[in-house]
Amino acid sequence: MGTLLIRPPGNRRDVTLRPAATAMVWIGEGQPHEMIAVPGVALGEKDVLVAVEMSTICGSDVHTVQGHRSAPTPLVLGHESVGRIIAIGDAGATAVDGAALRIGDRVVWSVTVSCGACDRCLRGLPQKCRTLGKYGHDRIGVHGDLSGGFGTHVQVREGSAIVRVPESLPAAVLAPASCATATAWAAVARAARDHDLEGAAVRIHGAGLVGLSAAAIAADRGAIVEVLDPAPSRLALAARFGASTLDRDPDVVIEASGHAVTEALDGVATGGTVVLVGSVFPADPVALDAESIVRRLVTVAGVHNYTGTELAEAVAFLAGRGRAHPFVDAVGDVRQLAAVDEAIGVASAPGAPLRVGLVPRL
Amino acid sequence: MGTLLIRPPGNRRDVTLRPAATAMVWIGEGQPHEMIAVPGVALGEKDVLVAVEMSTICGSDVHTVQGHRSAPTPLVLGHESVGRIIAIGDAGATAVDGAALRIGDRVVWSVTVSCGACDRCLRGLPQKCRTLGKYGHDRIGVHGDLSGGFGTHVQVREGSAIVRVPESLPAAVLAPASCATATAWAAVARAARDHDLEGAAVRIHGAGLVGLSAAAIAADRGAIVEVLDPAPSRLALAARFGASTLDRDPDVVIEASGHAVTEALDGVATGGTVVLVGSVFPADPVALDAESIVRRLVTVAGVHNYTGTELAEAVAFLAGRGRAHPFVDAVGDVRQLAAVDEAIGVASAPGAPLRVGLVPRL
Repeated sequence: MGTLLIRPPGNRRDVTLRPAATAMVWIGEGQPHEMIAVPGVALGEKDVLVAVEMSTICGSDVHTVQGHRSAPTPLVLGHESVGRIIAIGDAGATAVDGAALRIGDRVVWSVTVSCGACDRCLRGLPQKCRTLGKYGHDRIGVHGDLSGGFGTHVQVREGSAIVRVPESLPAAVLAPASCATATAWAAVARAARDHDLEGAAVRIHGAGLVGLSAAAIAADRGAIVEVLDPAPSRLALAARFGASTLDRDPDVVIEASGHAVTEALDGVATGGTVVLVGSVFPADPVALDAESIVRRLVTVAGVHNYTGTELAEAVAFLAGRGRAHPFVDAVGDVRQLAAVDEAIGVASAPGAPLRVGLVPRL
Repeated sequence: MGTLLIRPPGNRRDVTLRPAATAMVWIGEGQPHEMIAVPGVALGEKDVLVAVEMSTICGSDVHTVQGHRSAPTPLVLGHESVGRIIAIGDAGATAVDGAALRIGDRVVWSVTVSCGACDRCLRGLPQKCRTLGKYGHDRIGVHGDLSGGFGTHVQVREGSAIVRVPESLPAAVLAPASCATATAWAAVARAARDHDLEGAAVRIHGAGLVGLSAAAIAADRGAIVEVLDPAPSRLALAARFGASTLDRDPDVVIEASGHAVTEALDGVATGGTVVLVGSVFPADPVALDAESIVRRLVTVAGVHNYTGTELAEAVAFLAGRGRAHPFVDAVGDVRQLAAVDEAIGVASAPGAPLRVGLVPRL
């Protein structure tokens, strides 16, 4: 497979990479990844080029490879990464906090690339931009080949939310920030719009990394948090993320599994809020008893992805009070980038760790 | 049927009524109302006794009489009334705004009677009080016989939200305030928690009095409002309550019919809010596509009844900018209290007016 760069118009600068970058290209279900060499990129004037330190394999990457999600091919998967800036476009780039980014900055960045100008971006929904791009989700070519985390480098484009991260945090804590942690942060923030979490009863369905992260975040805000999951090993882990048990109906239920929507709706207290965040794959519809929603004054809120501010807040949590929780243990195995197929096999096996990491070299 | 007064403990004062009050008692499906004479009440120390000026027949009264809702009998129906205070308990009573109530005050009052001390009352959900009472819904006896709007008098108990109303507003505007208008107010207020209504696109399903009131309230807040209803005559009326047509997907959908929940969920814009308020009767469950709720960041919020503050705000609206809308036309027929069965027949006939009024005497 070649390395054709289709260059959109604009003030772009060719950046040559020596040695060439590497990207693992997924070409379809049942086929191994193809490794390609990328000798250079056409850097947009507000883009940055990041050398990947670690990417992690999200459940949605596994689902895509298994054919449970449709995806355009050829594709560089991976949308959970941490890395270091090695080149910046001619106009410079800024972090979410407004600070100018510099070569050498260690950063994470949003899954999404937003225009910042459409009605949805202006309404505070950049993750639903009318011309949305997503790392690890879009066909390679239009925006170059370095468009996903499963490579040595990622071309982080204008319209991404970029957050500088502390040197002291392990890569295993930071790589999932731009998916699991930030999404969990957004889910808890959504609940907090309706309820003061101090002393609130919060139930979380699903002890994947989103659910566990939400548990830690909610507990940190003073909530009593219960995590439900069919796997006993996950429940033991949940306790280390701040979970205990509730003695009353939950004011807030966060459904982070996608498999317990009915239980979430049935279980929430009168006046409570159910945040749906796990239903990111096709499933049978659930039966909604509208009268019960009305008479119990229940709110059901869907959350998908997050804003740049929420990503920054999630990182600040990981760098601060989040250190009390074993986020680093989420990455239970680390493989070399070239062994991505093997790594995805590990991530999809029964009893798999929450995350498998990929690094350019071990 | 007798007039047994079962008197709960407390500092109560017997108030004799000359001539005796009258209440129309519903004893079950298919049977005419029975008229009873009530020669006196045991007035709690913070109760007020109200002489009814007009009550209106709500759709839920019709549903109860038709056997579509279960209700305890014997029962005095009616929960939409306006009247004048003729007696006050020994400790005095206060309006929602904190002002002392006086004999002669013209008032409306909440459907619900709340304890003010339980967890739900303290959490701002008085309408879901653990020991909730409801005018026109509870079996007569425990709280006396004057417990619903279909009588000459109502004993308005401590724990009700009482709002003084202007003399200049017609009774036909005020009687529905404690059900349709306040519920519509609460529905719009719920939407306004998520969205700035100035310039927002709002769709309302159902041109009953709740839907029409919500249209007027939302339009008054600067929203572009569309009302959908199968009946062309209702749509013509909706235009007089501020409705026009939308040129984009609605940011807010208020489902006030109970029959268009699926359409409401499907139609709302990404990032939008669906307020369910019409589903107050048993219906088949609707199919909820959780993935769509998540990916579209949709919020679904149930609203039932309202708080005392919301009732006061609804009355203030009717007395202010609400005068621009034809609320008075909602009551298309007025009958004498003794003719309640005939009046319910009118209210349940095809093409019935939005409300039929009942007055002690024509």
